[in-house]
Parts: sequence; C-alpha cells; structure tokens
Amino acid sequence: MFPQFKNHINNNLAFLNGKKLLVAFSGGLDSVVLAHLCVGNKMEIALAHCNFNLRGEESDGDEDFVRQLGSKLGISVFVEHFETKQFAEDQRVSVQMAARELRYQWFEELLKIEGFDFVLTAHHADDSLETFIINLSRGTGIEGLSGIPEVNGNLVRPLLEFSREEILAYADANEIKWREDSSNAENKYLRNKIRHEIVPKLKELHPSMLQNFQNTQKHLQQTDALATNHLLEVKHKLFQYEEDQIKIKIGDLLELKPLDAYLYGLLNPYGFTEWNDVKHLLHAMSGKQVFSKTHGLLKNRDVLILSKLNNRVQQEFPVYLDGTPAESPVTLKLEPVRSMQNPEKKTIFLDKEKLNFPLVLRNWEKGDYFYPFGMKGKKKLSKFFKDEKLDLISKEKQWLLCSNDEIVWVVGKRADERFKVEDSTQEIIKITQLT
Amino acid sequence: MFPQFKNHINNNLAFLNGKKLLVAFSGGLDSVVLAHLCVGNKMEIALAHCNFNLRGEESDGDEDFVRQLGSKLGISVFVEHFETKQFAEDQRVSVQMAARELRYQWFEELLKIEGFDFVLTAHHADDSLETFIINLSRGTGIEGLSGIPEVNGNLVRPLLEFSREEILAYADANEIKWREDSSNAENKYLRNKIRHEIVPKLKELHPSMLQNFQNTQKHLQQTDALATNHLLEVKHKLFQYEEDQIKIKIGDLLELKPLDAYLYGLLNPYGFTEWNDVKHLLHAMSGKQVFSKTHGLLKNRDVLILSKLNNRVQQEFPVYLDGTPAESPVTLKLEPVRSMQNPEKKTIFLDKEKLNFPLVLRNWEKGDYFYPFGMKGKKKLSKFFKDEKLDLISKEKQWLLCSNDEIVWVVGKRADERFKVEDSTQEIIKITQLT
Repeated sequence: MFPQFKNHINNNLAFLNGKKLLVAFSGGLDSVVLAHLCVGNKMEIALAHCNFNLRGEESDGDEDFVRQLGSKLGISVFVEHFETKQFAEDQRVSVQMAARELRYQWFEELLKIEGFDFVLTAHHADDSLETFIINLSRGTGIEGLSGIPEVNGNLVRPLLEFSREEILAYADANEIKWREDSSNAENKYLRNKIRHEIVPKLKELHPSMLQNFQNTQKHLQQTDALATNHLLEVKHKLFQYEEDQIKIKIGDLLELKPLDAYLYGLLNPYGFTEWNDVKHLLHAMSGKQVFSKTHGLLKNRDVLILSKLNNRVQQEFPVYLDGTPAESPVTLKLEPVRSMQNPEKKTIFLDKEKLNFPLVLRNWEKGDYFYPFGMKGKKKLSKFFKDEKLDLISKEKQWLLCSNDEIVWVVGKRADERFKVEDSTQEIIKITQLT
Repeated sequence: MFPQFKNHINNNLAFLNGKKLLVAFSGGLDSVVLAHLCVGNKMEIALAHCNFNLRGEESDGDEDFVRQLGSKLGISVFVEHFETKQFAEDQRVSVQMAARELRYQWFEELLKIEGFDFVLTAHHADDSLETFIINLSRGTGIEGLSGIPEVNGNLVRPLLEFSREEILAYADANEIKWREDSSNAENKYLRNKIRHEIVPKLKELHPSMLQNFQNTQKHLQQTDALATNHLLEVKHKLFQYEEDQIKIKIGDLLELKPLDAYLYGLLNPYGFTEWNDVKHLLHAMSGKQVFSKTHGLLKNRDVLILSKLNNRVQQEFPVYLDGTPAESPVTLKLEPVRSMQNPEKKTIFLDKEKLNFPLVLRNWEKGDYFYPFGMKGKKKLSKFFKDEKLDLISKEKQWLLCSNDEIVWVVGKRADERFKVEDSTQEIIKITQLT
C-alpha cells in the first residue's frame, strides 16, 4: 500500500534516510498516517506531542492515545504540557498563534537537546488548497497563495503532495485509528466549510485539479523568488542603512516603474498597507509620516526615512507666539486671552510667565514623564499611554508640547499641572490644536 | 442609481471623458448595463455587435435587439457577420478562440476606420473571479491568476471593479432588458457551475471577499511586474541575439538561483513546459534538443540555442560505415548483408555502390524532396509530412539520412526509390534505427 510515499521519499527526500526524525504528532488522521508510513518505510522516527491543555479530558485522551501508539510501534514519544491560554494572554496573541509559537519553540529545543535532524509535519495538498482559499477570501499577496515549501530548513512535509483522500484511503485499508480533534472551532468551521462545500466542487472542475493546483503553487513560488531577487537588487541600490534607520532617495524611487509595484514590494515587508498614503508621502511636505503597525516612514526633504516604531526618528518643531511653522505636523494657534472662557475640546490655557519661548513640539521618548493636570505628583508618560489604551500607532502619532524640555501638553490629551493658570497669573495664553 | 460608476469614471478613468468610445456589445446583461451607464453619464458611445452566426435565429434575434436598443438610446450601432465555424476550421482553433480573434480584429478596424479612441468591454469583478478559478483548476502561473487590467492600451473595462450583483441590481431597478445568451455551452457550463455553486460559498467565507480578491489580484499584478522587470534584466545580460536564434551560455544559467525559477521565467514565454527535460538538457550531450510547441532548445557544447521551430538550427552528423557517432541524435546500425532477410520495422536495405560515405544525418529544410520508395516520381517532403499528418514537433524531430545531399531515408518512415537494392546490386547495406 501507498508505494507513492516510498517513491517520493527516495526520489525527492532521500536526504531523510538514516537521519533522526521527529514527527510532529497531534494524533489526528494525517500525523498518524505519516507515523505509520515512516515506520513502514524503516525511517528512524520519534513522536512529539503537544498537550495544549485546551480541551480538558479530551487533551489527556489524545496524550494517552499517543503514548499507546508509541509503545505499539516501538518508538519514543515526547510529550509536553503547555499553559497555552496563559501564554496567549501574556503575549497578547490568539490562542492559535500561541499554540503555534509554543509548538515550534519546543520542537527547536528537542532538535537541539535530543539530537534530531529534522521535524516532519503531516501537511498535505488539501491543507495547502484550504489555506490558499482562506487567504484568498481574506485578501493576500503572492506569499499567501504560493503555499508552504516541502522542505524549509529542518522542517520537512513529506505528505505535501498527497491528497487527504489518499491519506484516508491508506488509513482505511490498514485499519489505522486516529483521534478526531474538536479544538480550534472557529478555524475548524472555516476549514470544514471549505473542505466539504468548496473543495469538492473545485475538484469537479478538472480531473487533476489538485495536481494542477500544486503545479500552480510551484510556479507562484518561482515567480515570487524572481521578484524577491529583484527587490534585493533594488534595495541594494536604493536603501542606505544608517544605524536604526534606512534612507531612501525619493528621486530614485520615482524612477522605478511601475511605481506601485515597487512601493508594494519594498515596503510591504515593513507592514505598510495604505498605499495611497505612501504615494502621497512622496510629494508631501517634509515632516509628514505614514505608519504601519511596526514601522514609520518619514518624509524628510528629498529622502524617506524608514525606521522601527520603537526607534523612530526624533523630530522637533519650534512653536512661536504666533503659532506653528508650516512644516509642523500639528497646527497650533496661540492667542493671549483675558480669561479661560470658551474652552474647546483641544484647548489649554497656560500661564505665559511659566513658559520659555519658542516652545518645542517633539515626539515622546523613553523616560518621559509629566505632572498630569489635576493630579498630585508625576506620572510616566508610558503609564499614561497605557491607561489611555493607546495603541502603538497612536503613541507614535502623539506629539508633546514642551518648554525647556518639560512637557506642557500631551497635545490634545492632557495638560501639565506645572504650567496651569493660577490666581497669580498675569498673562494667559490659550493654545488650540487646529489640526 | 449607481453613482459609483460616475465616481469611478471621474476618479480613475477621467481620460475617457470627451473621447469617442465603442462599446463591445453582445446584448447580454453586462454590456447592456454598461451602455446604459455610459449614456446616463453622457459619454459618447456607439455599439459594436458581432453576429457570429453560431445560434441561427437566436443570433439574429440578438442583432435585432441591439439595433432597437441603439435607436432607443439614439446611438450608432455597428454590426458585423462572421463565418466563425469556417474561420475556426481554417485556423485550426476552437470556435471560442476564433470568435475572440474575429471580434478583436474587427474592433481594431473600427477604431481605425471610424476614428474611435477606445473600446469598452463589460467585464466585471465576478468575471475575473470565475476566470481565476477556471485557470486555477487547469493549472496556471501568476499570469493566469493576476487577472486582466482595467486599462490595456485602447481597451478599457470600466465595470471591472463592480460585482455582478451590483450590475444586476442596477438593471432591475431601471427595468433594463437584456438577451440571455445560450451560446458557448461548454464554457458556459463551467462558468455556471462556478457562478452558482462555488462563488457564493467563497463569498460566505468573508464579508468583503470580492473586494479582497481584487486587492489580491492587484498585488499579484505588482509582483508579476517585478518578476518581469527582473527577467528583462537577466535576459539583457544572458541572451545573445543572433539572427533567428538566441544563444545562452549554460555556465551563466547555472549561476542563477533558484535555477528552476529562472528556467521557468526565461523559457516559459517560449512555450516550454517540460522542466525536467530542460534541466537535463543543461548537462546533456551536445546535439540534444527539447521542444515546445513553437520553439526548440538545442544544447550545443557550452551554450543553449533557442530558436523558433520554423527557423531552427540546422544540424548535420556524419554516418560512417561503422555507424553513427556518440553525439548523433539517432543511433543507426550499418551492416553488410547477403540478402534482404529479417527486415525489421525501422530497417532499410540499400545498394552500397549508390551511396557516398560518410552519409549525413540532417534536419529537413524548405524545398527538400525525395523519391518515395515504390512510387514513381518525386515528392516534396513538406507534402509527405502533411500526408503523414506529422505535427510541428514531429517534423522537427524528423531526421533525414542523405548521400550527397540526396535523401536516402526519411529515417524510420520512408526509403528513397533511388538507392534501393536491385538485381544488379553487388553489396547490400542494412541500416537499422536503434534509437
């Protein structure tokens, strides 16, 4: 039965022969069949089973099943328990992401400590097709359509070119038992819908649909490789790496055609997705910025400066009594007033004598603190941001109005106690944020 | 109704305003709605309707409908009749290909003669998704997945970002009538299956599936553009253009990584699809060739020679009394025999005295003729090939055994009358094709 597997190992994955192999083993159909095939093919394997403690007794039942199968097949079994939910909460990621992270971390450890050469996973062609369809429905680029490689470093997927049908037929013919997994309901719902309602219809369109799909993915991987090589060359020419930032001459960018394709190719890896904003930035005034979740892109004269959000470029703009200069990222109106009447939403009133002009607008820095208006004592700005539940991007977009580098105003959010108008105040300055 | 169309024209296709536009008009839902939208948007259009004469009365009914709609909307109608089936037969293409060819030829003529600036077609987002799925099921590369552009030269598809649902809703709301097309049953079967059974399920996976799909196609187009630019640079470095052929140094090719990706990218445009054969060619003996439907790729020492099949490289190999040399593309065994016994399938018997050694194995050339064994008189080789129903590739693979440049044997197929064994023959040579 299933001579294709033996042939495939010998023709394409012969480097696995004689190596110490660790099979990522959930206990589900695919991993059970993979383990049986490897044993039947006299490959030296052990099983690695993650107990994510997500399904109570069922998780423990899986673990028992794995241990029994290990004894039956005469192979070692490694089991690790994870507090997946806790990890997900701590890392602020989904349970699914957490499980994935924990799994691969542990596999890496096992490879090192136990001296395994490769980890085998049981992904098959239908998995690839389902992932393709999920990514297609969500919107993606070539990376979401071209699939996972059969060999990626020390991670190998020997079943990748086989169909679920073939795997199931093998299990049936050999009376192989496996555990049904009830976990991961949401993702499972999506996959089940694709598996049972969409994929069978797709397969009806062409007798060798799945094979054709695999060839398509291979071609997409190839095109992706060409585009990647090209981008490496273009980056090599255009990107000037300086400490924590990358400078790109706008003139050089504008020579690339089609510009959209290059902006996407060069900047998508840094998380940028708002291409109209990025394009406008090329012709915007100095000081304008566009943010991704992880990076900032600053226009500074004739260059763009790309930097990670946590080490982005510090900027400063002077604020004079007659207001902010044209290039300032926020527009402030300053006016002397007699009283604190007509406060607007983004307005503060300050004691002019306490200020040292020009004031300065700047980004926040690590260690910044201020004395929140109406409170006693000082507060770390990072704590204030956290209490306000600002996300990374909002934090980056936050400007501080300072006098002698003391924070006067967390602009638009909170004034400082130190500069407030008091009974003794002679001149009141009203500052309003216009943009 | 449908202000999105007006907005889309003004934002993205403003260059159409004030131009003379020809709407490719079948009379089906999509083209009827497009015509109405253009008229409502005060664009200057005429209708171009192809009567392919494929559906008898129904075709004529479509034509009547188009003429009536033209009068009603007060716009010109161009109609052309085509003998589509005949054209398809003559050109040896499918009826669908023929219709497509005829349609675009005629549009080009109308543009020139009648002074239109652009042709508008009514392709919409669901069309793109259906085509994507058809190509996916058949196997494709990025070109089959990245979709058609909205603007391609003088061909514009203003509905490309709208869904069938939106178009249908517009038709319903405005009581617009259209003709149902019963043609093209096979393709229609496939599209209907996709439209009714697969696409609705895909759209259930994500609330903005169609929009996401369009963004995905845009990204694929961008990646394709990058890969294409890269291949242009690589070609510029590696391809030496010499008259009708292109020479590529094998050493240069072997430096490219990943090699598979480059072979695919560089040679797929010439129709090659058998990548294992192409890869083997790099390390094969001189004289080996791989063929696509249109091109040949010849290994010649340290270069590959790429040429169109109808002007492929002429090759010659000597044939000595003791047989063919190692590098010969076919292996012939020559032996003196006493009689014409034991004839095998690929054997001829010749009168040695009539031959001039070394014989020569060569490709065929235009103007070649021979005297087919058993016939009176000569025959053009091209006529012989036609009668034998040889396709292009088989013709290219056909070798001729010649003596003093006279054809002795169309190898493996037909001997020549002139060199046959006769009563007067002193020495008989038996030649057998081994490979």
